[in-house]
Amino acid sequence: MFEQYFSDRIKNTPSSFIREILKVTKNPEIISFAGGLPNPISFPQEELKVSMNRIAEKYGPLIYQYSTTTGLDSLREFIVQRYKKLWNMDITIDNVIITTGSQQALDLIGKVFINKGDKVMVEKPSYLGLLQSFSSYQTEFVQTRLNDDGLDIEILRNTMKEHKPKLAYLIPNFQNPTGLTYTCENRQKVFDVIKDENMILIKDDPYGELRFEDTPRIPYIGLNQTNKNIYLGSFSKIVTPGMRLGYAIADKEIIKMLETAKQAADLHSNIFGQYLISDYLWNNDLDKHIEKIKALYKSQATAMVEAMKKYFPSDIKFTIPKGGMFTWVTIEEGKSVMDLFDKAIAKKVAFVPGHPFYVNPQNVNTLRLNYTNANAETIEIGIKRLSEALEEI
Amino acid sequence: MFEQYFSDRIKNTPSSFIREILKVTKNPEIISFAGGLPNPISFPQEELKVSMNRIAEKYGPLIYQYSTTTGLDSLREFIVQRYKKLWNMDITIDNVIITTGSQQALDLIGKVFINKGDKVMVEKPSYLGLLQSFSSYQTEFVQTRLNDDGLDIEILRNTMKEHKPKLAYLIPNFQNPTGLTYTCENRQKVFDVIKDENMILIKDDPYGELRFEDTPRIPYIGLNQTNKNIYLGSFSKIVTPGMRLGYAIADKEIIKMLETAKQAADLHSNIFGQYLISDYLWNNDLDKHIEKIKALYKSQATAMVEAMKKYFPSDIKFTIPKGGMFTWVTIEEGKSVMDLFDKAIAKKVAFVPGHPFYVNPQNVNTLRLNYTNANAETIEIGIKRLSEALEEI
Repeated sequence: MFEQYFSDRIKNTPSSFIREILKVTKNPEIISFAGGLPNPISFPQEELKVSMNRIAEKYGPLIYQYSTTTGLDSLREFIVQRYKKLWNMDITIDNVIITTGSQQALDLIGKVFINKGDKVMVEKPSYLGLLQSFSSYQTEFVQTRLNDDGLDIEILRNTMKEHKPKLAYLIPNFQNPTGLTYTCENRQKVFDVIKDENMILIKDDPYGELRFEDTPRIPYIGLNQTNKNIYLGSFSKIVTPGMRLGYAIADKEIIKMLETAKQAADLHSNIFGQYLISDYLWNNDLDKHIEKIKALYKSQATAMVEAMKKYFPSDIKFTIPKGGMFTWVTIEEGKSVMDLFDKAIAKKVAFVPGHPFYVNPQNVNTLRLNYTNANAETIEIGIKRLSEALEEI
Repeated sequence: MFEQYFSDRIKNTPSSFIREILKVTKNPEIISFAGGLPNPISFPQEELKVSMNRIAEKYGPLIYQYSTTTGLDSLREFIVQRYKKLWNMDITIDNVIITTGSQQALDLIGKVFINKGDKVMVEKPSYLGLLQSFSSYQTEFVQTRLNDDGLDIEILRNTMKEHKPKLAYLIPNFQNPTGLTYTCENRQKVFDVIKDENMILIKDDPYGELRFEDTPRIPYIGLNQTNKNIYLGSFSKIVTPGMRLGYAIADKEIIKMLETAKQAADLHSNIFGQYLISDYLWNNDLDKHIEKIKALYKSQATAMVEAMKKYFPSDIKFTIPKGGMFTWVTIEEGKSVMDLFDKAIAKKVAFVPGHPFYVNPQNVNTLRLNYTNANAETIEIGIKRLSEALEEI
């Protein structure tokens, strides 16, 4: 009955496909590879308990009071120090804004930059939360194919020439949904193509810290400059997602605009959570904690890859993840992944069909599997069930 | 240098006037009536410390994990029970969505309902956070004057006839910025005028619980129905604002759309905070806690009113607040409140000039005073200083 009142923008926003999927998977008999939840091992519960009591003693009412829109200075300073150390970035806290999860950073960027019909380049496939948020700003998406080594340079070149996008949104490390990572060479080629374009590049990096191999970190596209670059990060995958704390790093002028947008959006992010996470970060060894998470996820990823090699027909392609939380499976062209989904649910295993990761999903034969929330044994059983479903379509 | 990239919408969003004001008031010698901070007495710190340790024991990783967009069920259930008890509202948790502060509820409503140029009726003056957020949706505002007893009925009638607004946004209890409350009779008259209009009414009520007098609560306009009504509430003024927890109550169809918008905005609100506040609310006597806050604020309001009576020239008008956190002062017509602001700062007292509370501020001779963050003695000194500034303009 309220249809007549709703805005064009919200009618344009896809309601979450994943939510519908997750409803099906509530049945406890179903092995679900559909979610995207970090394993609880990534929550340093004991340390956070120490921190919460410490901040209550140390800061008293400040942890409950209204605060600043850009976020807690000590938390911003931690981010500055870390990006200086890891990436040699030349930034101060004025280049950092704390957001209510990385998702809010996406939404604020949409608000600050997108006029109806503005073109935004995204990977094909791309993160569904970005597609959902930017859809509400009536964005015109241009998708550039993601290959095993990163963006397809030929398509990228044509996209730049033909569409001249205002923004590009990329997830270069252990991408959601594919698990793919751009190689160092690919990053350089991407940079060569875009460096003179009049385009702002958003580099979302929630999974970058979760690199399984002991190889050096690959520099960001464009060598960690801030000019015309926005870096997004998050504490969701390395400390806790429930606290909803992410951040954007960018030129001060952009941060100022994001601040204006954030003020209208929620005034500021939960300040208790900011004190808590800041206290945790300054008083514990984050890298050591991340090592624990990586070791677990690596073993889970390996279990999934081994099971897929063992059970899947040889024509099924999948990503061998070198970090992050997901692998991406491509079934035979012409076959429907929704058919597979129905068969899989009947066999009590769930995944996310590829649809929500495309701008105009058609003939989708891809699917996302998450491996961070099941042990090796369960993963093997689930993949075996999935392989049986694969035989039935 | 990024001007060319920014959206029309964000260029249309006023950056916060109040923020600029607050910068001036950082000088500790200045007595500031400019803020809108609750007194720390409203934070039940000891009880929250008990709750935080209890939820850590009781729920373990759940307080750190991703959660649902609509919010924690036990918190929604508390709201349902309270609105049933206080207002006899016929609702379930499906009528409730938890938001990242009431500010987010406003922003989501803007996103869900407003197309560029849609008309929204607001009080004159109105809450600056609403004006800021809705500006970013390129709303066309229609202002209806607020009198001592509530909305001006004649102007309201003309507004309805002439503009047919899609939404109306009202703060009927202890309004921010004026401190005014609609009388029972005024509410009935407002309802008579709007009841057959094709308009959704947003009733924002962050201060309603802070009623100084021991008189019965005044029913909401339209007698607490949910049809075509959205009720906004917040824990910011009665428990803690830093946790950023507010809520909207509305028809399920509206809640569903707000959920879609919220998912793109921040996935969900901080879940730790939701567990914490829910545990606090279910295990403590909220009404008893509110009594403490009210007693303090009443004494502070009285101190301010007495000081204004004592020091202000007799032609200065001001609200005598019966609840909430603010009073509203009207100086002689033709005089500039910005001149007064400069004189006041020179005398080391600060307030918020009326400008940000109007859609098109012109010849503003009004100002907002907050009394919740100073004791009676400081309030008297501050008002005396302000009266001296008044003499100089």
